[in-house]
Amino acid sequence: MSDSVTMEKLVSLCKRRGFIFQSSEIYGGLASAWDYGPLGSALKNRLQSFWLREMTQLHENIVGLDTAIMMHPRVWEASGHVENFTDPLVDCKNCKRRFRADQIPDENLKDKKCPECGGELTEPRNFNLMFKTHIGPLEDDGSIVFLRPETAQGIYVNFRNILQSTRQKIPFGIAQVGKAFRNEITTKNFIFRTCEFEQMEMQYFVHPSQDKKWFDYWKNERIQYYYKLGVRKNKLRFSQHGPDELAHYAKEAFDIQYEFPFGWQELEGIHNRTDYDLKRHTEFSNKDMSYLDEITKERYVPYIIETSAGLNRSLLMVLSDAYDEETVEGETRVVMRLHPRLAPVTAGVFPLVKKDGLAEKARVIAETLKEEFNIFYDQGGAIGRRYRRQDEIGTPFCVTIDYDTKDDDTVTLRYRDSMQQVRVNVGNLAQRIADEIKAYKRTGE
Amino acid sequence: MSDSVTMEKLVSLCKRRGFIFQSSEIYGGLASAWDYGPLGSALKNRLQSFWLREMTQLHENIVGLDTAIMMHPRVWEASGHVENFTDPLVDCKNCKRRFRADQIPDENLKDKKCPECGGELTEPRNFNLMFKTHIGPLEDDGSIVFLRPETAQGIYVNFRNILQSTRQKIPFGIAQVGKAFRNEITTKNFIFRTCEFEQMEMQYFVHPSQDKKWFDYWKNERIQYYYKLGVRKNKLRFSQHGPDELAHYAKEAFDIQYEFPFGWQELEGIHNRTDYDLKRHTEFSNKDMSYLDEITKERYVPYIIETSAGLNRSLLMVLSDAYDEETVEGETRVVMRLHPRLAPVTAGVFPLVKKDGLAEKARVIAETLKEEFNIFYDQGGAIGRRYRRQDEIGTPFCVTIDYDTKDDDTVTLRYRDSMQQVRVNVGNLAQRIADEIKAYKRTGE
Repeated sequence: MSDSVTMEKLVSLCKRRGFIFQSSEIYGGLASAWDYGPLGSALKNRLQSFWLREMTQLHENIVGLDTAIMMHPRVWEASGHVENFTDPLVDCKNCKRRFRADQIPDENLKDKKCPECGGELTEPRNFNLMFKTHIGPLEDDGSIVFLRPETAQGIYVNFRNILQSTRQKIPFGIAQVGKAFRNEITTKNFIFRTCEFEQMEMQYFVHPSQDKKWFDYWKNERIQYYYKLGVRKNKLRFSQHGPDELAHYAKEAFDIQYEFPFGWQELEGIHNRTDYDLKRHTEFSNKDMSYLDEITKERYVPYIIETSAGLNRSLLMVLSDAYDEETVEGETRVVMRLHPRLAPVTAGVFPLVKKDGLAEKARVIAETLKEEFNIFYDQGGAIGRRYRRQDEIGTPFCVTIDYDTKDDDTVTLRYRDSMQQVRVNVGNLAQRIADEIKAYKRTGE
Repeated sequence: MSDSVTMEKLVSLCKRRGFIFQSSEIYGGLASAWDYGPLGSALKNRLQSFWLREMTQLHENIVGLDTAIMMHPRVWEASGHVENFTDPLVDCKNCKRRFRADQIPDENLKDKKCPECGGELTEPRNFNLMFKTHIGPLEDDGSIVFLRPETAQGIYVNFRNILQSTRQKIPFGIAQVGKAFRNEITTKNFIFRTCEFEQMEMQYFVHPSQDKKWFDYWKNERIQYYYKLGVRKNKLRFSQHGPDELAHYAKEAFDIQYEFPFGWQELEGIHNRTDYDLKRHTEFSNKDMSYLDEITKERYVPYIIETSAGLNRSLLMVLSDAYDEETVEGETRVVMRLHPRLAPVTAGVFPLVKKDGLAEKARVIAETLKEEFNIFYDQGGAIGRRYRRQDEIGTPFCVTIDYDTKDDDTVTLRYRDSMQQVRVNVGNLAQRIADEIKAYKRTGE
């Protein structure tokens, strides 16, 4: 693995091939917002489906949920966001620039001098990171709603609904994927930190005496998950939150970090949130959020173990991790070593040449395969160039229809990683591809 | 088909079984916002995946896209939303109530008398339906951003990016699923009209001379799509927009309507939007949005045929359409006749009794099946009750493990619609279920 990836190469490939575009680009863009193109949206969908499948389909005690972005404003008082979800900002009285107090040099803050113009700075004031809007025709305090800054609260306020409508017993989990919004002053690193982003959060409800056991269980489960995505193990690590880094609700917290081209950064947090959230919602809503164990007859407010992952960060991770360059016959081959279950295109289908009925034959094969897989059909240009274009977007398989196909009904199946080619009978092709996806192991591991 | 569905029954079942909950319910709810529970979120995901698969995987000339909710504010000037996306509102000077001018009786409007208190009404004023917020720390005009009121514009502003990053030639389409927001004064009919909702929009770019041909093509394709979802044909119809109903950008428009329990209402619109949008974006962005036909060398601004469907409405439609009651052995059986490809749970797996190793055997079968399907395992209570609970949520298949299973490795496969039972070998079970899903035909059709 050559580790040849840089952010410049990645951003460029993402735009050129249709993974990620700057949002509203024709109007000069909008504060680090990004749009996911044909390949990027397919990859993002696959990451999301894979997470949901792992969480809900494969765990019979974890159920899915999909809650509204706009919630009752009391939710954010109960959660502590109205009070605490703030950054300290200072203004320059001279040049009117605004800064995060924790991001300007200490001497400027101490002398209250603007780092840009030397003018006088105001005292730091707390700026709330929640986006706010008004629902209904009146723009007054009574109509304020926030765009949720996290998906977790949508799960907590539905705890009773889930208990009543399913037969789940503790321990059990609730999983949700959805958008969240934070009015970040400093967005950066491509899609890594943006104002609008997607979270994949699972909240696991446990008996308070079992919190450590389940925290350790989920810590292990979640790192295994990234291995299953085909990410290199030496690029992943845990990072524990020290006592002074812990959020006000957390008893214990670990991040899973990935080594991005810009350094080790958080992918996912695993938090023991204790009974903080359910107790706060009990206090603010006057609704009982306790749980009755029907066997022991014990009534208690469960502890919550949270696994909170960023979908956009996961996407940036798999792209960074997959990017590779190697020299083949004197030329640089760029290849995205994406796990086949994530690759936006599963197979390219190519007639060697258009003529002599090969294109028609290839079309029939493509039509059959596309019932099950995402297929890219391409009949133009040299076959080597067609392979390279698929390598660059991570397509794990290419199927080539040639003159032998007409004789013996076999095609060439070409592997992205090894560039090896084998002959496969057309009738076995779909099953072969399905088997290869399941059996995939990244080379070099 | 008994057509026994009412909104009361549907809303009650949705809450009781975990399809749909009132959002922020413990805080008294929020203006007609809804959360999708374990079954509702699964059903919504399946509807979304089915639409995306039909559009992109099965059409090689339609690509996916997923754009940001917050876009550059100039987008909404170009689209006409800042100017035209308004409702006329009047205020009562006496009781301070606010009304949509087009929803109060004509005589009240004429006499300027409040329909509630008889007080004097103001002149109607236009109220813009876009939600607005501020990005960055300053709440001034320069920081205003809107929550998108439709997903279509995200497609138009990326037209050039798609042309450059894919090799699509006209005609081709771009498909997107995502949230949109409208500050509706009158929300109603459960999830039918809400402020926060999800659209499934596909924009098809065509030569201006071919607009009628492609309009008719998509009109037919889209009604066929609803038949594929298993919806009854007599509950679907087209409704053409008359000349005075057409939106300012539209040359021709048809709605596909479904007969909900509250009457015939729009599910999807099919619009010939002409070259209006691309020309407006050219004007406002100063970027060339034309297309060069490389064969004829003709350069032109394409026309757009739009198919715009509501995901939440589709969900309400499939639930309404599936709901059925029948009398079985003197009791009312509630059964959701959902298409098996949409049903949140594909199969219930039940040991006839817990003892004698049947539960262990059933667990092994459930573990194998859940690799491919959403499985609900249940070992408690009378078998008839367990079947009924699955009927009510639309689970198309139940698998029962009994004493014969231990002898001959067969299980009972029970069909939701007919309640018929057949014996199937355990080794053939997964393939049999997959085949049944593909072959499904709704009874009575």
